[in-house]
Amino acid sequence: MQQPISSIIYCRTLIGSHSPNHYPFKLLKEYNIVTDKKSLKEFREFRQRMNQKIYDSGHLGIKRFFTLDTKAYAEGAIPVPMKELMGLVASMVLRCDDCISYHIVQGVIEGVSDEQFWEAFNIALVVGGSIVIPHLRRAVDTLEECRVLEEENPDELKLQSGNNPYSDH
Amino acid sequence: MQQPISSIIYCRTLIGSHSPNHYPFKLLKEYNIVTDKKSLKEFREFRQRMNQKIYDSGHLGIKRFFTLDTKAYAEGAIPVPMKELMGLVASMVLRCDDCISYHIVQGVIEGVSDEQFWEAFNIALVVGGSIVIPHLRRAVDTLEECRVLEEENPDELKLQSGNNPYSDH
Amino acid sequence: MQQPISSIIYCRTLIGSHSPNHYPFKLLKEYNIVTDKKSLKEFREFRQRMNQKIYDSGHLGIKRFFTLDTKAYAEGAIPVPMKELMGLVASMVLRCDDCISYHIVQGVIEGVSDEQFWEAFNIALVVGGSIVIPHLRRAVDTLEECRVLEEENPDELKLQSGNNPYSDH
Amino acid sequence: MQQPISSIIYCRTLIGSHSPNHYPFKLLKEYNIVTDKKSLKEFREFRQRMNQKIYDSGHLGIKRFFTLDTKAYAEGAIPVPMKELMGLVASMVLRCDDCISYHIVQGVIEGVSDEQFWEAFNIALVVGGSIVIPHLRRAVDTLEECRVLEEENPDELKLQSGNNPYSDH
Amino acid sequence: MQQPISSIIYCRTLIGSHSPNHYPFKLLKEYNIVTDKKSLKEFREFRQRMNQKIYDSGHLGIKRFFTLDTKAYAEGAIPVPMKELMGLVASMVLRCDDCISYHIVQGVIEGVSDEQFWEAFNIALVVGGSIVIPHLRRAVDTLEECRVLEEENPDELKLQSGNNPYSDH
Amino acid sequence: MQQPISSIIYCRTLIGSHSPNHYPFKLLKEYNIVTDKKSLKEFREFRQRMNQKIYDSGHLGIKRFFTLDTKAYAEGAIPVPMKELMGLVASMVLRCDDCISYHIVQGVIEGVSDEQFWEAFNIALVVGGSIVIPHLRRAVDTLEECRVLEEENPDELKLQSGNNPYSDH
Repeated sequence: MQQPISSIIYCRTLIGSHSPNHYPFKLLKEYNIVTDKKSLKEFREFRQRMNQKIYDSGHLGIKRFFTLDTKAYAEGAIPVPMKELMGLVASMVLRCDDCISYHIVQGVIEGVSDEQFWEAFNIALVVGGSIVIPHLRRAVDTLEECRVLEEENPDELKLQSGNNPYSDH
Repeated sequence: MQQPISSIIYCRTLIGSHSPNHYPFKLLKEYNIVTDKKSLKEFREFRQRMNQKIYDSGHLGIKRFFTLDTKAYAEGAIPVPMKELMGLVASMVLRCDDCISYHIVQGVIEGVSDEQFWEAFNIALVVGGSIVIPHLRRAVDTLEECRVLEEENPDELKLQSGNNPYSDH
Repeated sequence: MQQPISSIIYCRTLIGSHSPNHYPFKLLKEYNIVTDKKSLKEFREFRQRMNQKIYDSGHLGIKRFFTLDTKAYAEGAIPVPMKELMGLVASMVLRCDDCISYHIVQGVIEGVSDEQFWEAFNIALVVGGSIVIPHLRRAVDTLEECRVLEEENPDELKLQSGNNPYSDH
Repeated sequence: MQQPISSIIYCRTLIGSHSPNHYPFKLLKEYNIVTDKKSLKEFREFRQRMNQKIYDSGHLGIKRFFTLDTKAYAEGAIPVPMKELMGLVASMVLRCDDCISYHIVQGVIEGVSDEQFWEAFNIALVVGGSIVIPHLRRAVDTLEECRVLEEENPDELKLQSGNNPYSDH
Repeated sequence: MQQPISSIIYCRTLIGSHSPNHYPFKLLKEYNIVTDKKSLKEFREFRQRMNQKIYDSGHLGIKRFFTLDTKAYAEGAIPVPMKELMGLVASMVLRCDDCISYHIVQGVIEGVSDEQFWEAFNIALVVGGSIVIPHLRRAVDTLEECRVLEEENPDELKLQSGNNPYSDH
Repeated sequence: MQQPISSIIYCRTLIGSHSPNHYPFKLLKEYNIVTDKKSLKEFREFRQRMNQKIYDSGHLGIKRFFTLDTKAYAEGAIPVPMKELMGLVASMVLRCDDCISYHIVQGVIEGVSDEQFWEAFNIALVVGGSIVIPHLRRAVDTLEECRVLEEENPDELKLQSGNNPYSDH
């Protein structure tokens, strides 16, 4: 009997609100389970819809904060890829999975190499300690997923990026 | 073919243990998936059962801590709604989704307005920084869900409240 | 109609990447849902596979950090069970569910009694405050699950342990 | 022999850069040591000069952040004194002495009563745990100092306030 | 010309309110500066006076919290010295110097060996990361000072202990 | 009457153990107080002596951790100056003054420009929130001091660096 597709979407939607990019596609394949390539897209839509609501709330302070957040990683005296890695290291030592995923996506888009990611992972691990390890495991998983997406669906990867009005963090 | 109902309950139960009120009901509706209004009730039962076990453990210190926790938000020189918002801001800067959900439910019951919630969200965002954003998104989602519940099922909302012996946080 | 098995594995796999041991088996039984005892095993395999990837990355610093992490809890002037409880208290006040689960599993294997666990829970609660409560609820759930496993499937419990090359945290 | 006055100013200046309002005046009197009422003023000048430098750096993002910070506590749907207490509770659970001092000064100026301060202290203590206690002791000390200043030198207290361009936090 | 004694007391008093036991006595001796063995005693008096004020505030919740805090480290299923080390590790990963000093004093009184302290330091360092290093340096300094006090002035060391009504943390 | 020199050294020594580079030299000059350019050197000696003691303790795990810490910032796929800024941002969001000072010194030695420092400060401020502001003020103060030292005493600045066996963090 085939797995009902709505069940999969349902689960993804629920989990997606917590950790955008952590769907272990390969793992699923190993277990021979129906996979759905729309999951990352779905999360992006969720994040954008919530960000849109936050904008629509009309709270000026929050809107301006989002703008400051976006601009902090813009081109300047520090190259953008390095800024994304700074955001990544900060997110890892503060242990925020969503933020880690966000900066990995941005870093991949900005051309950060795997070797650079691993050096940044190492800095975060040394500064933040073993409490960072579970987040490191998920970060490695996310990075791997992004590399697959980079090859198979670069458009979706770009859509994940913050280079559009409502995609802060 | 209809989605088997047990699957939905199953997923909810698992996820419920992590973030009580974050079921994106509306999102589910958009995807035309069977929804189950008992989910919040189920989480409440989970939380209360675990709290009951904690009480039944007989550890006096922990029981007393729970009592202190409940009393900290009781009527006093500071109005209860403002105390709930203080608990909310503290939970946001410390980034605990369950605690955020708890104080939003309490705040809604105590009559906190949306405008007040947004000003408290803003304080938490400014004090805690962009690392708070993913929690803000979920907080906005939870608040929206509570407003729906407030209209459609106020009894369930009240049951979520801490005004009963085993519902601390 | 029977619940399609693939759906269950699917959900577990997704959630497993976040919180290994929190499957509320008993809760599921109460709702008369198909349960699958392989979940804990699946998480272990996930964790070990990710740890293996981290090792395979060839980053010497990270590999050495993992070794330091394992050795910190080895026999010495402080008995191992007490070291595991120190790791547990540290994980609770820093609020890392995966780390909490890890040290509970290790503690159960090392013969820590329930009374000792509860005293450690209490220290963590007092030091870390009410923000620890949601993690305490999940810790109690995990401890209960480990006690069940200890009786019904001690081999699986031992496999969860860190006494093999790639099982740090 | 009299205590050289420059020594006192010297020590104060150095320490002042870390914790503005914590000079235990009464303690000093008990030990019959020369006290200097200008210390609080000196800290204010230090803070304002550093803030001025931050403004003068010309970094637009940081300047705008300071503006957002100031506005977060402005009059709105939540009364200003309650906002200051929210900032205070957030600062206590995040354990930042300078921020705690800042919000206590602001709260005193905004008419927050001692009873309200103590209820906020209690919320912070329960949410944040015993790790907050050393900060609570200093907060009590600062509150006491502000009450003295309120009676003896209300102008200096007002100058401490954020109601001027360069006094954020 | 001799250093005026009141200046020393003055400095100590100010600094003492932040970090009780960190006076680097030996360092001072190397620089041939007048030292004052009363500093630790002075801090104790400060802490006890502030704790007394907190008690005198009449806030029942805070008083009860202090009681819970004291009892968490009382004899039970876990030996007291191990509980103190759990409090120490928690304080180190949360990076609170006053709490670290407190638990080192208690540990020394309870007979914790240097080897045990170092193993606990190591656990804290691995869990918490390099951000713990500055606190580790001060912890080593405090431990050394306590060992000196243990030999030269055991009564003062005991007075530092929490075994009296107002000496929580 | 001249300020007794021993008093100054005394105060510096005490404070130095907490925040190495924060002596507001210019502030002191404005108040026409005797300043002592050896303070930074004194702190370095303190830090190195404590690090030496930590090494001499013979705890292999801690020694190896220090080595990992040093190597994390070594030349690799990410340029050293960028790694120092990653360490700086991580230290700022985790709010550790000593670590902030350390990475500013390293960054200045590695040729990080003021503009780059300010962009890193901004990222830390946005990620970490207003709770970072007091540390930002001290960071600006430290940076300014390093720039003075860079011109007036470059040898002392280099000695502050971690390029010697016992100068981790």
